[in-house]
Amino acid sequence: MDELSAAYRWGDPDRSVNLPDGVRALLANALGVREPRPPARVAALPPAALPDSALRALTAACPQVRTDEAARLAHAAGMSTVDLLRLRAGDATGAPDAVVIPAGHDEVVAVLAACAAHRVAVVPFGGGTSVVGGLRAGRGGYAGVVALDLARLDQLHDVDPVSRTATFDAGVRAPRAEELLSGHGFTLGHFPQSFERATLGGFAATRSSGQASSGYGRFDQMVVGLRVATPAGDLRVGRAPHTAAGPDLRQVFLGSEGAFGVITEVTVQIRPTPPERRYLGWRFPDFTAATQAARALAQDGPLPAVLRCSDELETTINAVSDGAQAADDGCLMITGLEGTAGAVTAMESALADRLSGLGAQALGPRPGQAWLRGRFAAPYLRDALLDAGALVETVETAAFWGALPDTYVAVRDALATSLADLGTPPLVFCHVSHVYPSGASLYFTVVAAQAADPVAQWQAAKAAAGDAIAAAGATITHHHGVGRDHIPWYRDEIGAPGSAALRAVKQALDPEGILNPGVLLP
Amino acid sequence: MDELSAAYRWGDPDRSVNLPDGVRALLANALGVREPRPPARVAALPPAALPDSALRALTAACPQVRTDEAARLAHAAGMSTVDLLRLRAGDATGAPDAVVIPAGHDEVVAVLAACAAHRVAVVPFGGGTSVVGGLRAGRGGYAGVVALDLARLDQLHDVDPVSRTATFDAGVRAPRAEELLSGHGFTLGHFPQSFERATLGGFAATRSSGQASSGYGRFDQMVVGLRVATPAGDLRVGRAPHTAAGPDLRQVFLGSEGAFGVITEVTVQIRPTPPERRYLGWRFPDFTAATQAARALAQDGPLPAVLRCSDELETTINAVSDGAQAADDGCLMITGLEGTAGAVTAMESALADRLSGLGAQALGPRPGQAWLRGRFAAPYLRDALLDAGALVETVETAAFWGALPDTYVAVRDALATSLADLGTPPLVFCHVSHVYPSGASLYFTVVAAQAADPVAQWQAAKAAAGDAIAAAGATITHHHGVGRDHIPWYRDEIGAPGSAALRAVKQALDPEGILNPGVLLP
Repeated sequence: MDELSAAYRWGDPDRSVNLPDGVRALLANALGVREPRPPARVAALPPAALPDSALRALTAACPQVRTDEAARLAHAAGMSTVDLLRLRAGDATGAPDAVVIPAGHDEVVAVLAACAAHRVAVVPFGGGTSVVGGLRAGRGGYAGVVALDLARLDQLHDVDPVSRTATFDAGVRAPRAEELLSGHGFTLGHFPQSFERATLGGFAATRSSGQASSGYGRFDQMVVGLRVATPAGDLRVGRAPHTAAGPDLRQVFLGSEGAFGVITEVTVQIRPTPPERRYLGWRFPDFTAATQAARALAQDGPLPAVLRCSDELETTINAVSDGAQAADDGCLMITGLEGTAGAVTAMESALADRLSGLGAQALGPRPGQAWLRGRFAAPYLRDALLDAGALVETVETAAFWGALPDTYVAVRDALATSLADLGTPPLVFCHVSHVYPSGASLYFTVVAAQAADPVAQWQAAKAAAGDAIAAAGATITHHHGVGRDHIPWYRDEIGAPGSAALRAVKQALDPEGILNPGVLLP
Repeated sequence: MDELSAAYRWGDPDRSVNLPDGVRALLANALGVREPRPPARVAALPPAALPDSALRALTAACPQVRTDEAARLAHAAGMSTVDLLRLRAGDATGAPDAVVIPAGHDEVVAVLAACAAHRVAVVPFGGGTSVVGGLRAGRGGYAGVVALDLARLDQLHDVDPVSRTATFDAGVRAPRAEELLSGHGFTLGHFPQSFERATLGGFAATRSSGQASSGYGRFDQMVVGLRVATPAGDLRVGRAPHTAAGPDLRQVFLGSEGAFGVITEVTVQIRPTPPERRYLGWRFPDFTAATQAARALAQDGPLPAVLRCSDELETTINAVSDGAQAADDGCLMITGLEGTAGAVTAMESALADRLSGLGAQALGPRPGQAWLRGRFAAPYLRDALLDAGALVETVETAAFWGALPDTYVAVRDALATSLADLGTPPLVFCHVSHVYPSGASLYFTVVAAQAADPVAQWQAAKAAAGDAIAAAGATITHHHGVGRDHIPWYRDEIGAPGSAALRAVKQALDPEGILNPGVLLP
C-alpha cells in the first residue's frame, strides 16, 4: 500500500470491499452515481517548517522524531469524509512538520516543555480516527506543528480484579486492550465503529460511545481515573468511583480533545467476559414504534447491552446491502444480550414479552448475526463508495425523548434539502443506537453523488444539519466530539460564559496555547 | 422556639428526642459523659457591616432584604457539629450582614450585579445544611457579606413524562419536590439524611448522594440540566442526556458550592413512583463478609435501590438505640427493594439466594422497617447528644473496593487515637451506604465526651481522619462537599494544576471574587 492511499483510506486496499450489486444499482438509479472518482496518486505535502532549534529540542526531549513524508502523511488528517476527500485530491496541507513518538509519560512531559519553549503546536494523536477535524492544528502564530503520536504508550499497567478496574497507557488500541484484558477474564466492552484503530486515550479525549453502551456505559462513564500531562504540570484525577470533592475534574479532561493536556494513562471499569452473547432482530411497523419501544426498554427494562433500531430507509438499505431480494418492510431493531447463559435466556424471554406487547415481531438471531458481522464494516464500505463517485458521511446528535421525533425529521429534511439544492438529492437514513432513560442518540447516514467540489458540497449539508440540530435544541454531537468542525454550534450550545470558563482552563494549563490550537475551544 | 435555639438545632425543640436509656447508659459508662452542656441563651451577633450604598443597591435589585437578628442568625452557619457548637456557645460571628431573598432568577442576576459593584460577598443559601463550613464566607477584603436565600425560587416549572425529566427552581426543598412529583405519578428518589431541609439546588451544588443511590443514582447523576446565574452571565447546560461536545459543563457546576455561580434551576431525571417498597435486613458474621457481599451485589447484582451495611459496633449501637435487650452479634445489612410488586418479589428471591451464598442470614422486614423509621433521625439525636454533653460527628469518604478494608481501619484508628490522646476516647462506628462497581463509601460516626473546648477537640480528630484518608489514597468526601473544612486535603487531591484550573474558572465567571469566598477553592 503506498503512503498516500494508506492515509486516505480506512482500510488496507488489499481488504477493500466490493460494492454489492444492489448498492451499485441503487447508486446509479437512485442517486445518479455513475462516474468513479479515482484518487490522486501524489500528495502535495507542505515543506517541513520546523526550525532547527525546535527540532533539536524535540529530539532531546524524545529521541523518536520523524520528519519523513510517510510519517507526516500518516498524521495529516483524521477520518472524516472531508479529510479523506482532501487527501484523495492530493491535498495534504494539514500534515504536521514532524511526528514525535514518546516512549512514555515522562517523554510526553518533556515534549510539551520543548514545544512550549519553542512555540510549537502539538496535536495529540491516538488512533487518528477523528471525524470532526480534531487532528488539524492551527499553524497561525506557531513555529511549527508536531503530531504527538502515543503509539508507544502501549502497556497495561494494572488489573485490579477486586475493584474491577484496569490502568492502561493511553496509546493502547481497543483490540489490544480487549486482548490484554481477556487474559485476565475481563472485558472493557467498548466497541465503537472506530474499534479497530482507536485508542483508549482517544476514547477518553473525545467522549466516545460504543455499540454496547446500554450494557457497559459510554466511555466517559467507564473512566474512573486519568493521568494527564499538561504544560502546567501533571494531574492524576480519580481516587474513588465518585466523590463530592468539588467539580468532577475527570469530566473536564474527558472531552478535552487534547486542548487542556495529554491524557497518558486511563483507568477504566472492567467486567467479567460474558460467557454468552446473543444478538436478536425484531421488526416494528415503523420507526415511531421502534423508538418508542427503545424508550420503553431504556426507562423500564429489560435493557440489553446493545440496543439499536433503524428507520425505514436504513432497514431497506441494510437488506439490499445484505443481498436480500425483496426489502423487508418496517423497521429493524437489534438487541444484544450478554451475560451468563441463564441470564441471557431469562432476558430473551422477558424481552420477547415486552417487545411483542410493543408491536414487535421476533426475527430471531439472523439479523443480529448479520449486524455483528458488519459492525465495523461501514468505514471500509465508505472507501469503496468514495472510489465509486458517491459522497457518504454521517451526522449524529442526541436529544431528550420528548424532542427526538422532531429532531429526527428536522435533521433528515435539512440534509435532504441542502443536498437537493446543490443538484445531488441524497438518500438519508438513520438509526438510534444509544439510549438513556431521558433520551437517545440519532445517527444519520447520507449518500449522494459527488458534486464537482465534494468538500464544499458536504460542508453545505453539514451546516444545514448543524443548524437544524441547534434549532431543535439538541446537541451538536453525541459521540464524535467538537474538533474544528462543530465549533460554531458548540459555541452557541455552551454560551459565552461556558466558552469563557473553558478558555480559562486552557489558559491555566497551557499558557502558551500550544495544545491542539483551533480545536474544541469556541 | 427562640431565634438562637432555632439556629443551633437541627430539629424543633418541640420535636426533641429523649435519649433512650441504653444510649444514656452507654454515654455514661463507656464514654464518661455525665455533665449536660446546656447551650447559651444569647448569641453575640457582629454588628451589621453593610455600607448604606450597598444596602440601597441590594434593595433595588431585590426588594426582600432582611437585616434583622432573626434572619441573620438563621443564616449564620450550616449544620456541622462545629457550627452548632459555636452557636451553642453564643458565637454567631459567622452571621451575614443581611439576607437577600430574591423572587426568581432575574433577581438573582440583579443581586449578583449589585454585589459585584459594591464588592459584597455572596453566600448562596439553600437548606442551610452544609456540614463542611460551606456557608461561612470570608469577610476579608469585602464591604460585607450577604446570604442569598433561594427559598422563594420554589416552583416546579415542567414535568416531561416522555423524557421523564422535571425542571425545578433551585430553592425547592426535597419533601416539596417529592410532593409535587407524586401528583404526576413520579418520584425523584433522592433521600439523603438532610432530606427534610435541603434543596435541589443545594444537592446539585454539593454533589449530594441519597440513601437510595444504588437505585436512583447520586444527585449528580440525576441532573440532566442546570441554569446558572454568574456575574459573567447566564448559562444553561444540558441539551441531551449525554453529549460528546466537550467537557461536561454540568459536572463543573455540580460540586461548585456556589463559588462559580448560583444554580437557579435544576432539571432532573424522574421515575414512576414505585408501587412497592420492601426493606429487609440480613445478618453477616462480620463487616468483612458484609462488605464483600455488598461488592458482589454492586458488581453482579441483584442490586437493590438501598444497600447499606453496618460494622460490628454500629450494629450493636443501633440495637441498643432500638431498645434491644441483648445486642445482636455480627453485622447488619439493610436492602431496600423498590418497583412493581412482581419485580420486588422476584428480586427478594434472587437476593435471598445470592446473599445466603455469601454467608447472610435473612432477618426479614423488621430491621428494614426500623431503619426506615429512623432514616432521618440522626440529626435530631445529635441535638440531644450535644445537650447531654457528648460530642458527635460524622466523617465520610469513598475508595475503590481494593483499598476499602485498609481505609476503614486507618480512618477508624485515626479517629479513635486522636480523641483518646485528648483524654476523650470515643466510640467510632461505620457503615457502607453507597456502592458502585468499582468501590464504595465509608461513613463513620464518632461519639465521645465533650472536652472543655469541643470545637478544637473535633478539629483535631477531623484532621487525623483527613490525613488517614489521604494516606489511604481515598477521597476526602463522598457526599459532604469541600466547603472550608476539606480544603487542605482537597488541595492535595487535585494537585496544583487542578487548583489552577478551578481558580481559572472562578476568575472567568466571577472576576470580582464575590461568590462564596473562602469556600471550595484551594
